[in-house]
Amino acid sequence: MTANKIKVGLIGAGFIGALHAKNLSRHPGIELAYVAEPNSDLGGKVAAEVGSKWIADPAEILSDSSVDAVWIASPASTHTDLIRRSIEANKAVFCEKPVGMDLVEVDALVDKYEDYGKPVFIGFNRRFDGSHARLKEIVESGAIGKVEMVSITSRDPNPPPVYYMKATPGGIFYDTIIHDLDIARWLLGEEPVEVYSTASCHLDNEVNPDREYDAATVTLKCASGAVCQITASRRAVYGYDQRIEVFGSKGMVQSENHGQSNVKLYQQDSIKQDPLQNFFIDRYATAYVSEIDTFVAACRGEKVDFPNLKDGREALFLSFEALKSARSDGPVRLG
Amino acid sequence: MTANKIKVGLIGAGFIGALHAKNLSRHPGIELAYVAEPNSDLGGKVAAEVGSKWIADPAEILSDSSVDAVWIASPASTHTDLIRRSIEANKAVFCEKPVGMDLVEVDALVDKYEDYGKPVFIGFNRRFDGSHARLKEIVESGAIGKVEMVSITSRDPNPPPVYYMKATPGGIFYDTIIHDLDIARWLLGEEPVEVYSTASCHLDNEVNPDREYDAATVTLKCASGAVCQITASRRAVYGYDQRIEVFGSKGMVQSENHGQSNVKLYQQDSIKQDPLQNFFIDRYATAYVSEIDTFVAACRGEKVDFPNLKDGREALFLSFEALKSARSDGPVRLG
Amino acid sequence: MTANKIKVGLIGAGFIGALHAKNLSRHPGIELAYVAEPNSDLGGKVAAEVGSKWIADPAEILSDSSVDAVWIASPASTHTDLIRRSIEANKAVFCEKPVGMDLVEVDALVDKYEDYGKPVFIGFNRRFDGSHARLKEIVESGAIGKVEMVSITSRDPNPPPVYYMKATPGGIFYDTIIHDLDIARWLLGEEPVEVYSTASCHLDNEVNPDREYDAATVTLKCASGAVCQITASRRAVYGYDQRIEVFGSKGMVQSENHGQSNVKLYQQDSIKQDPLQNFFIDRYATAYVSEIDTFVAACRGEKVDFPNLKDGREALFLSFEALKSARSDGPVRLG
Amino acid sequence: MTANKIKVGLIGAGFIGALHAKNLSRHPGIELAYVAEPNSDLGGKVAAEVGSKWIADPAEILSDSSVDAVWIASPASTHTDLIRRSIEANKAVFCEKPVGMDLVEVDALVDKYEDYGKPVFIGFNRRFDGSHARLKEIVESGAIGKVEMVSITSRDPNPPPVYYMKATPGGIFYDTIIHDLDIARWLLGEEPVEVYSTASCHLDNEVNPDREYDAATVTLKCASGAVCQITASRRAVYGYDQRIEVFGSKGMVQSENHGQSNVKLYQQDSIKQDPLQNFFIDRYATAYVSEIDTFVAACRGEKVDFPNLKDGREALFLSFEALKSARSDGPVRLG
Repeated sequence: MTANKIKVGLIGAGFIGALHAKNLSRHPGIELAYVAEPNSDLGGKVAAEVGSKWIADPAEILSDSSVDAVWIASPASTHTDLIRRSIEANKAVFCEKPVGMDLVEVDALVDKYEDYGKPVFIGFNRRFDGSHARLKEIVESGAIGKVEMVSITSRDPNPPPVYYMKATPGGIFYDTIIHDLDIARWLLGEEPVEVYSTASCHLDNEVNPDREYDAATVTLKCASGAVCQITASRRAVYGYDQRIEVFGSKGMVQSENHGQSNVKLYQQDSIKQDPLQNFFIDRYATAYVSEIDTFVAACRGEKVDFPNLKDGREALFLSFEALKSARSDGPVRLG
Repeated sequence: MTANKIKVGLIGAGFIGALHAKNLSRHPGIELAYVAEPNSDLGGKVAAEVGSKWIADPAEILSDSSVDAVWIASPASTHTDLIRRSIEANKAVFCEKPVGMDLVEVDALVDKYEDYGKPVFIGFNRRFDGSHARLKEIVESGAIGKVEMVSITSRDPNPPPVYYMKATPGGIFYDTIIHDLDIARWLLGEEPVEVYSTASCHLDNEVNPDREYDAATVTLKCASGAVCQITASRRAVYGYDQRIEVFGSKGMVQSENHGQSNVKLYQQDSIKQDPLQNFFIDRYATAYVSEIDTFVAACRGEKVDFPNLKDGREALFLSFEALKSARSDGPVRLG
Repeated sequence: MTANKIKVGLIGAGFIGALHAKNLSRHPGIELAYVAEPNSDLGGKVAAEVGSKWIADPAEILSDSSVDAVWIASPASTHTDLIRRSIEANKAVFCEKPVGMDLVEVDALVDKYEDYGKPVFIGFNRRFDGSHARLKEIVESGAIGKVEMVSITSRDPNPPPVYYMKATPGGIFYDTIIHDLDIARWLLGEEPVEVYSTASCHLDNEVNPDREYDAATVTLKCASGAVCQITASRRAVYGYDQRIEVFGSKGMVQSENHGQSNVKLYQQDSIKQDPLQNFFIDRYATAYVSEIDTFVAACRGEKVDFPNLKDGREALFLSFEALKSARSDGPVRLG
Repeated sequence: MTANKIKVGLIGAGFIGALHAKNLSRHPGIELAYVAEPNSDLGGKVAAEVGSKWIADPAEILSDSSVDAVWIASPASTHTDLIRRSIEANKAVFCEKPVGMDLVEVDALVDKYEDYGKPVFIGFNRRFDGSHARLKEIVESGAIGKVEMVSITSRDPNPPPVYYMKATPGGIFYDTIIHDLDIARWLLGEEPVEVYSTASCHLDNEVNPDREYDAATVTLKCASGAVCQITASRRAVYGYDQRIEVFGSKGMVQSENHGQSNVKLYQQDSIKQDPLQNFFIDRYATAYVSEIDTFVAACRGEKVDFPNLKDGREALFLSFEALKSARSDGPVRLG
């Protein structure tokens, strides 16, 4: 750490990588030294904007002993390997979800490095949304008593491109609902023992020609009787619908949606408000910054909570089991 | 009182009289014996519906010693005299606002009968709305500390008929805002020492050919520095807008509008709710019933709060002074 | 019908029977002639209050040819038989849910009388709540497009007495969730092909010594891919939680909870509102009256929608299948 | 403009100057070249943080011909002179409100430079709040018809320090309510012809030993009959209360408060939300950035709306007249 700043190398300068680059470069606790990206146009542009060095190969980051931390925002298929190499280079690690796509490899990584002394922080950004974090704080405070029911609504405004859906069959589970499964584990306070899913295909052929699942529900059961219900869709015409509700023995708490404004228009036939914030870039803009705050605190040895390697593994595992349930039309016993 | 029921004679079977007749006839604590109404068609119809005796002249109610209470819902010009005669006949009295239209007569009545031992209850129905009453309870509890500011929004969906506006020049003050002035006194906890009003004329010639005031504001100042702002209109296209807010040294409390439903519709361009309840018949339906509950309790000697003769006088007085201010374009010192 | 009023005989004067008695006696379209109730104290008291004749045996209602309609609010075990006898006596019928407790008998009744020419109206009161009815109207209007997901939250403030829970094992499904299953069918617009449930036992031994299910979830799947998720609890400390949400291809609509007031208190540490309406007596007070309005309209031959005998059968069937799923720990294929 | 960036010199590095420095330095359209501040510790620190050159005397900014714009955040007493000198140096100008404290000087400035070809942008930040701007857009769209009534609630969480209140007698009008007067003019669409104010002193001697006005109301009347009511306080224990409502012939629109989170906690006795955002730094954080966006657009010759020199003069004038009204206990005719 130079002058108390954490020196970071970013891997990946695609959409989400560029977003991280901007946030990292502005953060007072971070020095963003490298942007590693094989695509030179993309990498060069992003690096220039944030005043960092562009490199094609992340190996330079890993071998630079002055680098404190690696920030992984490359494609999912590269995650497990990059996490492993970063740990071997003794770096702190931030990695976008998922921790990988091959559960065997992921399990091997977790087994080997679960006790690694530096942060391995998996980017489940929703935990860092102000309202969701406040909900968690209230649950932790005991204000609603023992958690009995978690309800999560998670709807994207628009489906991903056709090629992307085709390349990731069942992706609604391991690409999108994986976030909700992480939230479920975070709030339930115990591991589910059974998962039951439904999956549907509602979108037009034009946007979903391969008839991929574009809507799904998941029910998680825990040994204590606590349950979580998730409902997800890849097309909510009214915007990005992100709600969490936790019901307990002493009360209930909701983290509600965020609108585009706080304006109400009263007319003869209705009272109107502006739509919800459109997508994660708007809704979770501050969450991405809070992730960095927490990562910096963790690197400095402060006691903070964040989703770690094990959490990354569990959410991935649950997403695969949920997909299995949807495909087999029956519940799957876990663990 | 027959069998613990309060025997009531109703005077007036117009719109509001018929509403009271229905509520009184259904109330378990009331026996509605008479409906007095000069118009025989009207009076006969209402009396038949509620199983009471129709009479043309209210004198029969006043001379029937078995009648416990007189319920006055006749035209405003008759109120002062009917209250006086009812008191002289030793009846409990309910009288729709206003207590009269001639302040000299009203003052004489108040002077003579302020200490009358039976209830003289003036029908400021808003005090009995569930939300407004809850607000008052919170203010009384001290939860917001010393009252510093009362804000009242009071908008009718539609103006009264042209003939009515013409017959009651400046009526927005003594017909409508008189309710708000009563609410102001109820919440301020002290009498205002100054009133300043504005009055405007916004409606089309078609509905307001005589260019009567159809919108107004009132500012009331108290000796402690507490202030009340009222805004009123005779045409809110979005429904009956009835809001009260009280700001104090330790907090603020609002009694908000009531919608026609609790339904929210999320569409691409907006989030929509149904409009507000349309008018006082809907919004204050339960308030009219609560008035009767309180009147019955008062007749039975229970300690309950209700707007009395003096309150009726003060609100009338303030409405006249507010009208004076609007006409003179300057504040009026009171008392 | 005497003087255009529908002459009704009420069967049952328990808690809900007494409520119906009061509403029926006040309804301008109804003449409540009889209150049949074996318990003479109870029956006599209720009949006196509403000015009807008390009888012990409902047979007198059925044999009185001037009676137009039978209103059944007796114990669930008597429903099927009383509906049958009422139909045989050529009466219109209102019957509280459920239509019975023995599906074989119920099926026989439905088979025989599905085409009966007079209304057989099953008391699923929630359909007649103003907000829920408005939600249904919006769904029917096409404003949210094709229905893809129905989410129902249904939580009672307090569990029933211990003796009642013991007498009705699994009753959370056929006593409470049966309402939600009716709402689900009403909104989905197609019959479910699979049901999956979870059931839990969270309450203390003191209030649930027999460890009956006191919380449950249900997932219903339809052939089109539409899904319904229900979450239910017998103890929500914050009041009667009754919400419905319908998500579709063009939008989403919610029927939200109803609070005890529309008051907001702003203090240093929080913004507070009064709790939800406590239970069905408050929340569905107007729904019980609307049921009568609709029943009267149906008796008069107007085209109105109401839950009929078949609807009563389907909701009962689904509640039994949902209970089966909870007990067997797996989904149940339907139909 | 270097490389399409607007080269800016900032004058003043106090609290609000430092805030602007941070925002300016991060803005892609701005090059923040200088921070002028007589206090070398303060100026040096802020300049270092944003990578600009610290200077003691703003003259260096004015004489640097490569500087495009001057950003004035120095004490109010210096504003008129600095605006004048900046215009004489042919710079674009941003100046925090007020435009000065001496109306004669301000009038002279306006007279001379009203037609100056470059932007002179007065920092009425509230116009740039997302919700307020959306409200304005709706008003402009005609959705509420002709504006008849503007209601503004403007309450600070805490009063300024004692020394500050003492140094600025009546400051609640020209320091705080000046913002609301600007909003009133912005929304009314016509100039007021009369102002009537009340002013009160509610705070304890400890925080207000000089018995300065700490609460006030203002009523503005326009020739058309449109009216604006403002209520202001220097102590709202529940947070920063910033609401605007506009009522018109065809509807009503509200810009409501912003809470600290979108979380709702349901417990036995209440439903709770987190308090409002505490003060302008939180509530108007994005407004300060939007100001820069608009300033940049204006400098580039785009057609955008912003509060100009004349607007600054009018709001100052109204604040002085409102104070006069409060002191004289009567309305003041304008213009």
